[in-house]
Amino acid sequence: MIPARPEGLLTLSDSSGDPLYRQVYERFRGAIAEGTLKPGDRIPSVRALAKDIGVARGTIEVAYSLLAAEGYIQARGQAGTIVAPNLQPQAPAAPAAAPKPLARPQGEWTHHPTPLPFQMGLPALDAFPRKIWARLGARHLRSLQPPDLAYPESRGLLALRTATAAYLQVARGIQCAPSQVFITSGYNNTMQLVLQALFKPGDSVWVEDPGYPPTRAQLAQAGMQAVPVPVDGEGMVVEAGIAAEPRARAAVVTPAHQSPLCLSLSLPRRQALLDWAERSNAWIVEDDYDGEYRYVGRPLPALKSLDRQGRVLYAGTFSKVLFPGLRLAYLVVPQEQAARFERLCALLAGGAPALTQGILASFINEGHFGRHIQRMRRLYSDRRDATAAGLSAVLGARLRIEPQPGGMHLVARMEGRQADRALAARMVENGLYAHALSRWSEAPDAQSGLLMSFTNIVSAEQAEQLARRILQLM
Amino acid sequence: MIPARPEGLLTLSDSSGDPLYRQVYERFRGAIAEGTLKPGDRIPSVRALAKDIGVARGTIEVAYSLLAAEGYIQARGQAGTIVAPNLQPQAPAAPAAAPKPLARPQGEWTHHPTPLPFQMGLPALDAFPRKIWARLGARHLRSLQPPDLAYPESRGLLALRTATAAYLQVARGIQCAPSQVFITSGYNNTMQLVLQALFKPGDSVWVEDPGYPPTRAQLAQAGMQAVPVPVDGEGMVVEAGIAAEPRARAAVVTPAHQSPLCLSLSLPRRQALLDWAERSNAWIVEDDYDGEYRYVGRPLPALKSLDRQGRVLYAGTFSKVLFPGLRLAYLVVPQEQAARFERLCALLAGGAPALTQGILASFINEGHFGRHIQRMRRLYSDRRDATAAGLSAVLGARLRIEPQPGGMHLVARMEGRQADRALAARMVENGLYAHALSRWSEAPDAQSGLLMSFTNIVSAEQAEQLARRILQLM
Repeated sequence: MIPARPEGLLTLSDSSGDPLYRQVYERFRGAIAEGTLKPGDRIPSVRALAKDIGVARGTIEVAYSLLAAEGYIQARGQAGTIVAPNLQPQAPAAPAAAPKPLARPQGEWTHHPTPLPFQMGLPALDAFPRKIWARLGARHLRSLQPPDLAYPESRGLLALRTATAAYLQVARGIQCAPSQVFITSGYNNTMQLVLQALFKPGDSVWVEDPGYPPTRAQLAQAGMQAVPVPVDGEGMVVEAGIAAEPRARAAVVTPAHQSPLCLSLSLPRRQALLDWAERSNAWIVEDDYDGEYRYVGRPLPALKSLDRQGRVLYAGTFSKVLFPGLRLAYLVVPQEQAARFERLCALLAGGAPALTQGILASFINEGHFGRHIQRMRRLYSDRRDATAAGLSAVLGARLRIEPQPGGMHLVARMEGRQADRALAARMVENGLYAHALSRWSEAPDAQSGLLMSFTNIVSAEQAEQLARRILQLM
Repeated sequence: MIPARPEGLLTLSDSSGDPLYRQVYERFRGAIAEGTLKPGDRIPSVRALAKDIGVARGTIEVAYSLLAAEGYIQARGQAGTIVAPNLQPQAPAAPAAAPKPLARPQGEWTHHPTPLPFQMGLPALDAFPRKIWARLGARHLRSLQPPDLAYPESRGLLALRTATAAYLQVARGIQCAPSQVFITSGYNNTMQLVLQALFKPGDSVWVEDPGYPPTRAQLAQAGMQAVPVPVDGEGMVVEAGIAAEPRARAAVVTPAHQSPLCLSLSLPRRQALLDWAERSNAWIVEDDYDGEYRYVGRPLPALKSLDRQGRVLYAGTFSKVLFPGLRLAYLVVPQEQAARFERLCALLAGGAPALTQGILASFINEGHFGRHIQRMRRLYSDRRDATAAGLSAVLGARLRIEPQPGGMHLVARMEGRQADRALAARMVENGLYAHALSRWSEAPDAQSGLLMSFTNIVSAEQAEQLARRILQLM
């Protein structure tokens, strides 16, 4: 057991910004680094520690799984859980002992804590074809030639841009040449490229309200003005945007599944938005982060497919259809803008790794990409229904689950202004995960609700169990 | 039209792993490379070919746009589409001539043209231990677990930050914790992070003159003022900087091997620079792109190792010591700045791929990194001497070769104001490579010289042969 309860280990603070599981994790890591806990020492069971310090078991479970993932502790079945015997006290934190920190070849590979239940923005991690990916990767690594080690094209590997252009034509109705496609490391990276290429500090940009908070943060960082435009059943209310700021230089929209409400931008609204952009020489940034995932009817063509005047910049990502650790996304720009973006690309970042781009290009060209999307569409449809059923069964009286026609999360409406914030915070503290809908809005009368991903919930039973944990926190 | 429909061009296979557009593209590329299709030949319209071989027009459009993007074909409006007239089947630029382009399974993997002789900024591509890298990579790919697919830490994998901090302590005398290390995708990406974290448009920054042009471009893009500060035998003339712009917010310097002159910043100058930064609360960005490579005496400790007041931001990269296609570099910030940089990291890019970071962490932790640097130090010392000898033997009368104590390129001085620009241009036109020294300077009396890398020149004989080609261009 923990010798004489080292000070601090068992006193957690609600005020510290850190969630409880993270505080537990940090305290153990500290005690191990300082040698208060020595290699081989037995540590309390989840049940015992949870009781000792009066937090939910889930909290301790998350902390332990993180410590185990990083190699600090090892579960020994009946023998309980112990501090890893091969651990050198100074190893993890201090550089000094780092050259073989934990003597674990793949230690770094298991760094990430297990994603939390309902965690947003993650695809079904268990369903990705890791074996196929590993096979393609090994093939690329074996075939490495000296020229392959040089700088890749900063706008992206030609083969990946070509495969992406071909995919977009078939799947999203977008006609574009590979020279219009720019490979980035993710949506934020894409936005950096767009903001620096087309805008200047002080420019105004329409954003959806409620809408994806990082977009506002990016605009603020760039010294630009985010103009919240309300969203109704048809998506962004274009007239309201024109009324609020007709001279906006751009609009950032999520037409396929509005983020976070998952509604589709209606055809009349799409036309109104395009008309406005053409009239006022403004840009439309189409964030199509999960357009592939529609469970009722067919995926809608992208807004970009209606763009006749070259006003739409189309931002897609492989983080949702494949996995975020890949760090690959893309931007499609109007032909007339391609040269400008190419220059800027080299200046800002210098491109993504040849290896991950090469593996992905093969994954697409050999048909695995299309098959995976088809499989995920069916899987997500099932998991969405199961999660909605499980949550409704337990929380139906307190939450109104809105299963949307598409997307990767559920919207669970609740009563009480900003009541969602306290509950979401308690869920995170207890090893669950949810976003508070009201935090995605700047409107004073923002609605309350929980945003919960269903992509990693495998059954209605699991959803019910988790729902009961939520119920205890209400 | 296509003469006598070359066999194979119009028969596509559904069974081959390649998508149809790619098969069309490969057939045309092959026909052009083999000369079946000659420069200026007219090729079928999209409509006609689609009809001929019975595929969707979109398929042909993608193939043609790819061929056009690579410069194989040109649309001539009413005149139809033709094979590019200026195309030389064997031209080094054309992928067709790249190492076994059509024979290899992964077309995308052979995209890069072979680097040109004397090409700057590349390590010895032939000397990288590709087998070891492939083995580590395959191991990481095999051991992938679902949590590994989630978002990596945006500031970088803990294992890589830890390994980097340990290496910097031993090799560069820098004391830092992993929490001060930020993994980026390259020097440009590092500068983006620094510029957005610490500066605002209008700020002035000292840069070395002559100095690395991309640094000035980055500052200009950020709306900042680059103040050229002359470089003498001891490096940046700090007094001149103070005289030119005492209120500069920062200085960007290359203390180990001044870029491009390869001189070291003297100890008095280092002290003067640190004193200025402390007095005026300015920042020093230390660009230590190749500090490992010194061939006379031992590598000097980094300027950062003398930083007592936390004014130095240290920028390192794995592009030069390993290979640029890896797209991994790092930034070390003062402890007090770590939190600010961590927030910004997530906002701007969201991190490098878990795979490349994981492979690299293993490469370092298992000792391959240290061994590779030792090997390269010896190899570059030899190649530097061989290249200098070969060039001097042929061009000694026209160029004064300055073998520097460190770095990855030679400086070949020549007479005549800006005479270097015409020669460097002719060299590039003729499949050689050199930078004109005068282009790295804004001084009216900028000196003439050629900057030529020796890292991929394997013998004095090769250098002599190349020197004779240069001689013919003078």
